[in-house]
Amino acid sequence: MTKSGSAIRALVFDAYGTLFDVTSVGALCEKKFPGHGKPLTELWRVKQLEYTWLCSLMGRYQDFWELTARGLRFACGALGLALEENTFRDLMENYLRLAPYPEVPEALERLAHRLPLAILSNGSPEMLLQVTRYNQLTPYFKAVLSVHDLGIFKPAPQVYALAERALDLPRHSIGFVSSNGWDAAGAKAFGLNVFWINRFSRYPETLGLEPDWEIRTLLDIEPKLP
Amino acid sequence: MTKSGSAIRALVFDAYGTLFDVTSVGALCEKKFPGHGKPLTELWRVKQLEYTWLCSLMGRYQDFWELTARGLRFACGALGLALEENTFRDLMENYLRLAPYPEVPEALERLAHRLPLAILSNGSPEMLLQVTRYNQLTPYFKAVLSVHDLGIFKPAPQVYALAERALDLPRHSIGFVSSNGWDAAGAKAFGLNVFWINRFSRYPETLGLEPDWEIRTLLDIEPKLP
Repeated sequence: MTKSGSAIRALVFDAYGTLFDVTSVGALCEKKFPGHGKPLTELWRVKQLEYTWLCSLMGRYQDFWELTARGLRFACGALGLALEENTFRDLMENYLRLAPYPEVPEALERLAHRLPLAILSNGSPEMLLQVTRYNQLTPYFKAVLSVHDLGIFKPAPQVYALAERALDLPRHSIGFVSSNGWDAAGAKAFGLNVFWINRFSRYPETLGLEPDWEIRTLLDIEPKLP
Repeated sequence: MTKSGSAIRALVFDAYGTLFDVTSVGALCEKKFPGHGKPLTELWRVKQLEYTWLCSLMGRYQDFWELTARGLRFACGALGLALEENTFRDLMENYLRLAPYPEVPEALERLAHRLPLAILSNGSPEMLLQVTRYNQLTPYFKAVLSVHDLGIFKPAPQVYALAERALDLPRHSIGFVSSNGWDAAGAKAFGLNVFWINRFSRYPETLGLEPDWEIRTLLDIEPKLP
């Protein structure tokens, strides 16, 4: 893609799946439920997201911590795994210590010297505070924005509008970075400049809302900047 | 469950997955892509639904026919299956001739003698007209209601409100029938009396919105009525 990123004056990052590897809970899932770690990790994530969309559409917001818990309970139930309360607690707490993708600290360090960075996430404020602090990434961000006060999840347009307000920049001056194809599509629909991080060579969403750039890791962002 | 259905004065049915078996396209999927019929059928359906939620949340409605097509293109792409235009057309047209579940004609025949029946579906009006007519089920329904004029999909509350208006009955007098757990949850959130058809012993959604009745087939509805 040959589009120029010269208009970009700030970068806004999705958190879960983009900065933080949601499958990093897989090791603990496998330890707790030997032989089921991978399907449990995958179904947990699928259901967590599905519930954000459903609750948003019903107009019945529950925060991301609650829906992460509901997703875990569903995933264990559907896979026939008995979820003891202490296992439940351990798995949930692991979500506050998700590992970043390997290049993330270096990429943020470099980008933060170039322009203001922010997080814009479905996560509840407390979840975002903890996972960012645990990974010592807090200093890189001017703002950590949660959907929580809006009471609706991505990809509702009012979520992406949070970035405009917090950064005091128009949408065409903001670069939005997400590994989640549906989130990239939502940001594009709103009018942000979108970097889709396609780490695993996934097939692109066919919603008709293509990202401005498809790149492999966060290190590929800097060469696109002015 | 011991709840009484005595308040119910009309029944409203979800279409896809409830009256019509969305996996009945599986045979043609398998014929077109030998060895891939099952994963293709499943991913097609997953993506079709996901796109209804995403487009609704973005405020960018596209009708169910279009999203069914987009879901099919994604599913083939993600599974590495080359989708020729005539195969695409054949698979899409098969969606207009989905088979009903085996007990559906008999159950509708019996229920239609007891109280008014309607369909309330994500499907576009033309899709619903065709699949209902093809299966000779049209005469059983007083109304076939589509989300189309609202420009938003289930489980948005305004969709379930269509049933109140079309039947001129308050929500507590309407029984809603769906095999889709998330749809049953949406109807329950709105205030309808919900029959969840759990044909395949699926694990229930953990959204905190339980159906009033969990039953196995449409034939289990009648004994719950006054």
